[in-house]
Amino acid sequence: MASPEIEELTQALSRLPGLGPRSARRAVLHLLKKRESALEPLLRALDAVNERLVTCSLCGNVDTVDPCGICADPRRDARALCVVEDVADLWALDKSRLFPGRFHVLGGRLSALEGVRPEDLSIDALVARVEAGGIDEVVLAMNATLEGQTTAHYLAERLERFPVRLTQLAHGVPVGGELDYLDEGTLAQALRARRPLG
Amino acid sequence: MASPEIEELTQALSRLPGLGPRSARRAVLHLLKKRESALEPLLRALDAVNERLVTCSLCGNVDTVDPCGICADPRRDARALCVVEDVADLWALDKSRLFPGRFHVLGGRLSALEGVRPEDLSIDALVARVEAGGIDEVVLAMNATLEGQTTAHYLAERLERFPVRLTQLAHGVPVGGELDYLDEGTLAQALRARRPLG
Repeated sequence: MASPEIEELTQALSRLPGLGPRSARRAVLHLLKKRESALEPLLRALDAVNERLVTCSLCGNVDTVDPCGICADPRRDARALCVVEDVADLWALDKSRLFPGRFHVLGGRLSALEGVRPEDLSIDALVARVEAGGIDEVVLAMNATLEGQTTAHYLAERLERFPVRLTQLAHGVPVGGELDYLDEGTLAQALRARRPLG
Repeated sequence: MASPEIEELTQALSRLPGLGPRSARRAVLHLLKKRESALEPLLRALDAVNERLVTCSLCGNVDTVDPCGICADPRRDARALCVVEDVADLWALDKSRLFPGRFHVLGGRLSALEGVRPEDLSIDALVARVEAGGIDEVVLAMNATLEGQTTAHYLAERLERFPVRLTQLAHGVPVGGELDYLDEGTLAQALRARRPLG
């Protein structure tokens, strides 16, 4: 029978998204077998994240400093604000280095199903940032899901009284995407938003 | 862009079996979002495993003591030894509480494909245990895979010169198993080993 330490580690791992009880058990065995090459690096990495990372009090990004590197960067265009659901979306957008402005992380999306209400997200803080002025454009970069779009519409209503331009990401065929494999919704959006060649 | 701490944690997690880079990233975000309910328990559990667990020098089991609880238990039948590939197999067999003896963990299986040779497994230690005497029966409880069975045959050759009974687990229809879903190999084994009714 496995010791209580192993049971606890298995349980802690099985609560991660993407790992069930069986794969958590396999992961624990892997960690036990490869202590120096797997367990100890994971332990150190977790510890470093736990010790050093903080949530930016301005935008909700996760970084070693508060305000985060993006909010503190004077070369960033303070007039453009990109609102995203999660930190992962911020990273994905920032990796492209195409957006010169700052970000605002909501911390999720409105969801009747999961009981996520406006007060559960960082929406009041967003409204306060826009109300404080100095922002010309707010990009509502929610996911192209039903819940993401519901959230975008809700934000648009909350922000319409301010003198800012509200925009959203374009829908269309992903670069490298094959029409054959795309859903009808994407195809319809791509066709509706078609542009003159060259 | 994610900080180096996050990249390192993502990499450490993505090396776990069952987690790819994308799900490791999702797991990291989950850990960052739920620090108190996910990150800190995982950190504590990993630390406890790293600090407290040792490999039993007799059988290869993982426990907080060496010799492990099974090897040290005087109620265990020292004359019966069950050889398994991995610690997980030991736990699975021991959970059933049907085997009264002790165990020996090989630490893997012979595999030409993965380059696992006899000297990479705890085979010499097994031979030494059997040679030391006091053992009547050795159950070769390898997995019912090609590599498991190759390993069992190799062990049988190594152990045949000692006065012990070598046995293996029975093959057949798993309890609750539907014939329809079983492979031909299992069905053939089950038919060949058929027994008179009750």
